[in-house]
Amino acid sequence: MNYNMIFEKAIDRLHEEGRYRVFIDILRNRGNFPNAKCFAGHNGPKPITVWCSNDYLAMGQHPAVIEAMEAALHDVGAGSGGTRNIGGNTHLHIQLERELADLHGKEGALLFTSGYVSNEATLSTLAKLLPNCIVYSDELNHASMIAGIRNSGCEKRVFRHNDLEHLEELLAADDPEAAKLIAFESVYSMDGDVAPIAAICDLADKYNALTYLDEVHAVGMYGARGGGISERDDCADRVTIIEGTLGKAFGVMGGYITASKTLIDVIRSYAPGFIFTTSLSPVLAAGALASVKHLKASSEEREGQQKAATRLKTMMTQANLPVMESTTHIVPLHIGDPVKAKKISDILLMEYGVYVQPINYPTVPRGTERLRFTPGPHHDELMMTELVKALVEIWGRMAMKLAA
Amino acid sequence: MNYNMIFEKAIDRLHEEGRYRVFIDILRNRGNFPNAKCFAGHNGPKPITVWCSNDYLAMGQHPAVIEAMEAALHDVGAGSGGTRNIGGNTHLHIQLERELADLHGKEGALLFTSGYVSNEATLSTLAKLLPNCIVYSDELNHASMIAGIRNSGCEKRVFRHNDLEHLEELLAADDPEAAKLIAFESVYSMDGDVAPIAAICDLADKYNALTYLDEVHAVGMYGARGGGISERDDCADRVTIIEGTLGKAFGVMGGYITASKTLIDVIRSYAPGFIFTTSLSPVLAAGALASVKHLKASSEEREGQQKAATRLKTMMTQANLPVMESTTHIVPLHIGDPVKAKKISDILLMEYGVYVQPINYPTVPRGTERLRFTPGPHHDELMMTELVKALVEIWGRMAMKLAA
Repeated sequence: MNYNMIFEKAIDRLHEEGRYRVFIDILRNRGNFPNAKCFAGHNGPKPITVWCSNDYLAMGQHPAVIEAMEAALHDVGAGSGGTRNIGGNTHLHIQLERELADLHGKEGALLFTSGYVSNEATLSTLAKLLPNCIVYSDELNHASMIAGIRNSGCEKRVFRHNDLEHLEELLAADDPEAAKLIAFESVYSMDGDVAPIAAICDLADKYNALTYLDEVHAVGMYGARGGGISERDDCADRVTIIEGTLGKAFGVMGGYITASKTLIDVIRSYAPGFIFTTSLSPVLAAGALASVKHLKASSEEREGQQKAATRLKTMMTQANLPVMESTTHIVPLHIGDPVKAKKISDILLMEYGVYVQPINYPTVPRGTERLRFTPGPHHDELMMTELVKALVEIWGRMAMKLAA
Repeated sequence: MNYNMIFEKAIDRLHEEGRYRVFIDILRNRGNFPNAKCFAGHNGPKPITVWCSNDYLAMGQHPAVIEAMEAALHDVGAGSGGTRNIGGNTHLHIQLERELADLHGKEGALLFTSGYVSNEATLSTLAKLLPNCIVYSDELNHASMIAGIRNSGCEKRVFRHNDLEHLEELLAADDPEAAKLIAFESVYSMDGDVAPIAAICDLADKYNALTYLDEVHAVGMYGARGGGISERDDCADRVTIIEGTLGKAFGVMGGYITASKTLIDVIRSYAPGFIFTTSLSPVLAAGALASVKHLKASSEEREGQQKAATRLKTMMTQANLPVMESTTHIVPLHIGDPVKAKKISDILLMEYGVYVQPINYPTVPRGTERLRFTPGPHHDELMMTELVKALVEIWGRMAMKLAA
């Protein structure tokens, strides 16, 4: 058994497929988002514009967030010092959970160290607790949901993306007495399309299934108070569990679920990924609390983001760039090849100071490789004009296909 | 299918067994560790002394850590805004990984959002990548290691705690050509005993196995630079992967592994729990970097902790309290019953302002329920005298058995 050879071959496979990932070494500058500094491959830091951040509303630099974190840092300290059960349950965690429960109109909420962990821990625990549970999973669900479902060891049916007919077909074919859970997302982050939440809840009612909705790419950004697509579509009360993140539009770090008091108590009491881990730093809890509160009251950031996304899509379409259909703030540009996607991204960074990461397999299916832009309220007209000009130049240089 | 009934029954089971967990609502006061405020069940916050924190060296309030976090908060912002691959790879992450690799004398390091995730993601990915891998796991390994091994789907052999003979018996019985991985901890956090690392590495050499060592309860605290028991015992170079946390002695939050460059690259490239999650907040990375650097150079905190632990063990022994054998900084006091453990903990908090969490199943085996004290450099003689006096009083009041 030659371990090193196995490891080296695993790396070689990625190079051969052109999907070996090189992390771009950056530092964002608070007060200047989306501008940042780039370190790698240059003589000293170089200024760049970040076009691929999930800090969608630039809340990571919002004064209310920074001030709350600074206060917690000075009053409480750096880390929590323990699990939620053993010394790591601070008043800030409790306040944040109340705020999140209120955001989604639920009885309770539970914090996790990340959105990934909230999905993995909740789905695996829930599906294990329900006898002979069958999980119905959208084919484009995030890796963390797939991991949670797999780790539960329960039966799984994959339905075609946002396909209600297929979902119903699968539900109808199973034992009416079996426990059922439908797991799906609201905004699918790589395509920017949206699930028919109410219609899925209709099916859940008809077949007595629970629903699990991942809103990580929607919380803070949709609904009058930032409660996500389920708030916008006025159906949050119909969803059993709404999951969200504190690391994207809220600009900080961490994940959470909201649900009934009993269900929260069950996950709190049974999920290893919740129980056996140091709780969120009180500094993060304080920042997230300020961010959620702010976005409940202010729609300025949401409106700025929607305006920027619409403007960029229009400019790309007018320039005949192959922008993919998206009904949300996400602007994907089709490439269809991992090597080209990487090359275009490299040229943008090196020659234009534009940072947008190529999205390759396994994040998206092979053949659908893309650049994924996330314009926010602070991406202005000039930045967009320069970006589109750069893309048109590169498209020409590389003899890439324009949109029909 | 009555879902609510199932959930309520799951909660009832915990109440019946006396192991329903009630989180104590506290806020630590920076500058005053181990003192804190307690909220729940009182009229207004009440001052308490925390005796169960895993912020073992009080680095969560160290000026160097607080200052570094404040600087990052002001210069970089709250969150990272993305995964390591997509916009969330900051210069601070890279510097911290270099520092951690150096701490353990390894070529590379990789950050995770928590120690739990580092164990789960690394073990599940590694054991999946190695063909027909067999994992040899100490029976007292942490829940996160068990989860990682289970989720890999590979063969698993559980060896009796720290039992070299049993481990060798299992290794010798398997196919010499099979890939093998021995997973164990250095300091076992609930008993405070230590693994024979070098002897386990001897067996790994003899049977061509890789070794995975969890040092979360040792990093920062053992070895001349805080490299853990593997540094103290001068055998870090013999261990394939050393895993640690930034959330205990380093006082912040997050987890990591260190290993050869190739192995780090493999986990970085293949582990879903690493790839598909927002990276650590740059504020946390900055704090951890300062903490690791400080504890590399300063032994004052380590010595203060060892002194406090020795003193408390002595005082408890002299008072005939059933302190369990421990060769480390952890001071477990045997109770053996979940209801009594909870009751003693409640009395300590309500009447004495002493916060120590009861440790019940599933964190420890049933029948070994305990109180687990973690004295640190800031627990002084007076605090210890008062604690032991309180325990003796409660022992008498509840007619509990004293040590022989």
